[in-house]
Amino acid sequence: MGLHLRVLGVCDSRSILVANDIFTAELGDSSLHAVCRVKSSGVSLSASSDGFGGDCQVLSDSEAPRKVVDIAGLLGRSTGLVVVDCSASPETVEVLKDVIDHGCCIVLANKKPLTTEMKDYEKLLSNIRRIRYESTPTSLCWETGYIDDIVQVGAGLPVISSINRVLTSGDPISRIVGSLSGTLGYVMSEVEDGKPFSQVVRAAKCLGYTEPDPRDDLSGMDVARKALILARLLGSQLDLSDIKVESLYPDEMGSTAMSTEDFLQDGLASLDVGMAERIKVAASNGCVLRYVCVVEGPRCQVGLQELPKDSPLGRLRGSDNVVEIYSRCYKDSPLVIQGAGAGNDTTAAGVLADMVDIQDLFK
Amino acid sequence: MGLHLRVLGVCDSRSILVANDIFTAELGDSSLHAVCRVKSSGVSLSASSDGFGGDCQVLSDSEAPRKVVDIAGLLGRSTGLVVVDCSASPETVEVLKDVIDHGCCIVLANKKPLTTEMKDYEKLLSNIRRIRYESTPTSLCWETGYIDDIVQVGAGLPVISSINRVLTSGDPISRIVGSLSGTLGYVMSEVEDGKPFSQVVRAAKCLGYTEPDPRDDLSGMDVARKALILARLLGSQLDLSDIKVESLYPDEMGSTAMSTEDFLQDGLASLDVGMAERIKVAASNGCVLRYVCVVEGPRCQVGLQELPKDSPLGRLRGSDNVVEIYSRCYKDSPLVIQGAGAGNDTTAAGVLADMVDIQDLFK
Repeated sequence: MGLHLRVLGVCDSRSILVANDIFTAELGDSSLHAVCRVKSSGVSLSASSDGFGGDCQVLSDSEAPRKVVDIAGLLGRSTGLVVVDCSASPETVEVLKDVIDHGCCIVLANKKPLTTEMKDYEKLLSNIRRIRYESTPTSLCWETGYIDDIVQVGAGLPVISSINRVLTSGDPISRIVGSLSGTLGYVMSEVEDGKPFSQVVRAAKCLGYTEPDPRDDLSGMDVARKALILARLLGSQLDLSDIKVESLYPDEMGSTAMSTEDFLQDGLASLDVGMAERIKVAASNGCVLRYVCVVEGPRCQVGLQELPKDSPLGRLRGSDNVVEIYSRCYKDSPLVIQGAGAGNDTTAAGVLADMVDIQDLFK
Repeated sequence: MGLHLRVLGVCDSRSILVANDIFTAELGDSSLHAVCRVKSSGVSLSASSDGFGGDCQVLSDSEAPRKVVDIAGLLGRSTGLVVVDCSASPETVEVLKDVIDHGCCIVLANKKPLTTEMKDYEKLLSNIRRIRYESTPTSLCWETGYIDDIVQVGAGLPVISSINRVLTSGDPISRIVGSLSGTLGYVMSEVEDGKPFSQVVRAAKCLGYTEPDPRDDLSGMDVARKALILARLLGSQLDLSDIKVESLYPDEMGSTAMSTEDFLQDGLASLDVGMAERIKVAASNGCVLRYVCVVEGPRCQVGLQELPKDSPLGRLRGSDNVVEIYSRCYKDSPLVIQGAGAGNDTTAAGVLADMVDIQDLFK
């Protein structure tokens, strides 16, 4: 495509590797390969004894975020500089707000900055042309991440851009229903086939489909963040705490009351009968059980729903994500977007597409 | 959205109504309402005795296209001026190429300019940031149109933008399969229910789902144009004549050999047995028959295919459009986009979204 991406810096949670001359130089392939080696070994860039090449330097602690903001101030308004947040941290929001103040563009795979306080959201979206976050609503996220900044994975289904397109065309969206967790999609389609809930969750963990503690998926909070991003996109002034979230395990099995091991060995099994019963009830109504988000007017909720077998969501199998968008034009038959919802490749692809898309501002 | 669209001119096939002062003035609501009244009565703007207001004038014949190109030359490069082609005519391509030469943006709902000669396509796409044509691949088009420029209808499913996004992210697309005709989608799902082909086509005509001569739908040529737009987007150097197109009626029932009335009364009925037979064969293979386009590498074909009942295309009912996109990231499970594929509202919405989208170039 004749595209050249000039990488000025790479951050982890404690440091930044940055080109010495930000106006003309860049981190070359050898420096970037060195970064990958260091991070794969679980070490902070600032703690690495590896060299990254002579044309760049490592800054750490408070110097790192300040450097990002400085560069944004120097290059952000006039060049196609993009600050990309692929972390899973709520702590990046202050840097992102400063960067936005400088008129710089941002691309997020990280859901946290968009799902904390409404005033932060409004600030980040204050120049809607300078932000893209297509990888946030259909991504799967491991938050424990010792490889901190490289662990966020997810997909770039064109959900945000499609919703924006519908809204831009003056077609009001009345309702969004989605299955936004590949993990819970997999779990619900396996239990539908008659397998015990506990067995399915344990298998999903073995296959690497869940977070290290599967309760981080089963709580529904990750889906709630995705739902909140969609609700706010439609203009809702909601906070995360306003969303009704159904957890797939009871409070007394929470992480403060029970270790991950105990939950997997004992806790989970006690949920099998209840889940099997709910599936039986759904089936007797000609329905299947799906873990979905529903955004409708000021209402936003996340949890299990009985859905007709022959609806796009009811037909869903495996770990695909599906989003149904209902509007004036898509009234009886929704606009449906479906596809794989997780994977390093797809997140990287989604973030890259966002970065290129934003370059129209700097033709 | 704080958006103000300044309409400088409106064309029909023989004339243009244009603001006198293109630098500051615009066609106001009263002028535009007058245009709608005149065109609804089937009269050319230049032949109308109605006044359109004092701040605009009507130019006709060769003056009209020249005026469009002149305005593009004056405003196209530096402002967000967009020339929009909602006609169904192959004749607009020369004006569009001139306009592109001036660095002006274009938005097309008209498939013709993109599906004639490859060199025209390349010219129109020579600045890919300055063209949008999201309404072309999933639109239904009446070509006979006595209300010439207002008859093109179709939808804006986010197909082009999604394909561009996947390509931009460096994810190569291997295959696109789509049901791109709401009319043929409706026909095939009705005959699947056991109704005779002839009866279904006649009913579709009565309901206004087909063109005045239903053979314009049944020939598959409209779908072939849509397929060609997708194939060219993937880099194919194909022409329309390279596409293998299956017509749903034999050559001897073509419009040169048989009137529309004869075709509807006699010709159609003779096709019932053959269609019923094919559906029976498909069903015995656990499949349903769908009229689809397949774009795969340098190959592009359009026609009836037996598809598994439980695939996104096999499950399709009614007049929805569906597009399945297979790539490296979407390998086993495609990216699927589905929704209503026709309607004045949805075309208007699609064109408007394209016009707004392109404004990022002129922030």
